Amino acid sequence: MTDEQALLLPGERIDDLQWMGLRIIQSPDAFRFGMDAVLLADFAGVRPGSRVCDLGTGTGILPLLLYGRTQDISCDAVEIQPVAAERAQRTMLLNGLENRITVHCRDLREVKQFLSHARYDLVICNPPYSPRDASLPSPKPALRTARQEGECTLSDVAVAAKWLLRHHGRLTLMLPAVRLADALETLRQHRLEPKRLRLVHARVDRPARLALIEGMFEARPGLTIQPPLITQNPDGSETRRSAGSTI
Amino acid sequence: MTDEQALLLPGERIDDLQWMGLRIIQSPDAFRFGMDAVLLADFAGVRPGSRVCDLGTGTGILPLLLYGRTQDISCDAVEIQPVAAERAQRTMLLNGLENRITVHCRDLREVKQFLSHARYDLVICNPPYSPRDASLPSPKPALRTARQEGECTLSDVAVAAKWLLRHHGRLTLMLPAVRLADALETLRQHRLEPKRLRLVHARVDRPARLALIEGMFEARPGLTIQPPLITQNPDGSETRRSAGSTI
Repeated sequence: MTDEQALLLPGERIDDLQWMGLRIIQSPDAFRFGMDAVLLADFAGVRPGSRVCDLGTGTGILPLLLYGRTQDISCDAVEIQPVAAERAQRTMLLNGLENRITVHCRDLREVKQFLSHARYDLVICNPPYSPRDASLPSPKPALRTARQEGECTLSDVAVAAKWLLRHHGRLTLMLPAVRLADALETLRQHRLEPKRLRLVHARVDRPARLALIEGMFEARPGLTIQPPLITQNPDGSETRRSAGSTI
Repeated sequence: MTDEQALLLPGERIDDLQWMGLRIIQSPDAFRFGMDAVLLADFAGVRPGSRVCDLGTGTGILPLLLYGRTQDISCDAVEIQPVAAERAQRTMLLNGLENRITVHCRDLREVKQFLSHARYDLVICNPPYSPRDASLPSPKPALRTARQEGECTLSDVAVAAKWLLRHHGRLTLMLPAVRLADALETLRQHRLEPKRLRLVHARVDRPARLALIEGMFEARPGLTIQPPLITQNPDGSETRRSAGSTI
């Protein structure tokens, strides 16, 4: 193990996932992972031996959570923001995973230039939350890129995934429920047939907040809509979920 | 009131909806309405004064259920099968609704020839259940047309709705959940923007069985996914729903 404090920059801290010994470097000023990443990692259902690509990895939380589920994966994680990418890379060093999870500080619209074609089993993405120009930009540039489509669109993600995935490889996404029609349409346009959908509701009597979506490259049509995922207990308290929760 | 028995053909019977005094003529050999029609009628949320068109009305159940909810509607109901259309027309006579609900024995692909353009507030359709050639045809011709796309496709329904609806008029559909991606894509292709979705699950821990979908003509993107609709009680018994149930 390296000297852990030497891995931190001013303002950063190490958070323990309290699961599988995994830890993550985060900065309170930047986008921090939340329960949504756990839901997406679990929805993805990674299989042992999978070759994975995480588009827009941010802190690197998704590769960590996928690794925690099977250990036997290799992952390329793409992040356009230099500060975030460099921090994610240090998180992999902190966990001794730098040989399994490679962080690339690159634009996901350029994956053809640095990743292999048709070799990935799973592409995963927790993409920005609004279509371009749908809302005011965040005043913090780091949050702006993480939450809005200033840097990439759903279509960019689909183009990248189509290029990376093998036949019947899977793209899993999480999006605000309001964008479900956009997502299904975009996946289809790129031959990433929507095969599995799970909607996330705070309570069973509330509208859906998020959609977990799986597209399969070159698959036949036919969508399974899984049971709703309810994130609050009946008494209104938040369901307690750890990094290793299954949904 | 006419002599009720004179309204029946051999093999037919009058079923009482046990709601609002409404009754329906049905034949045990043909497609009979079920709880799905009640779910769709309630999802549609018809408003007083609405001008409605039901595409593929079958027994005429949907116009009856919409009438029961507000009384103040006018409806054109289209049915291509002569036997079903004629029976639905007798159901309207039986209920004294022949001036409010007009049954047209026509092909919904020809609505331009007999219905007004851009004058409808609501188009409703409980369309056939599988894409053409997805499964074996039913041996009974009447069931075959009612359950499969031998006679029309989702696209035919969307084309008809686009022609009938006023600006921001609504199309409401019910489809098997497996066809959700098809439905959302088809609606968008015809500028019927998906605005509201509700998924029907037998139990909260089971996959969705049906999707209730609302498209709005010439509306902006943005989908509300309503709370899941659960049709069984926790003990596994079917939730009791009458013709006037609200969901």
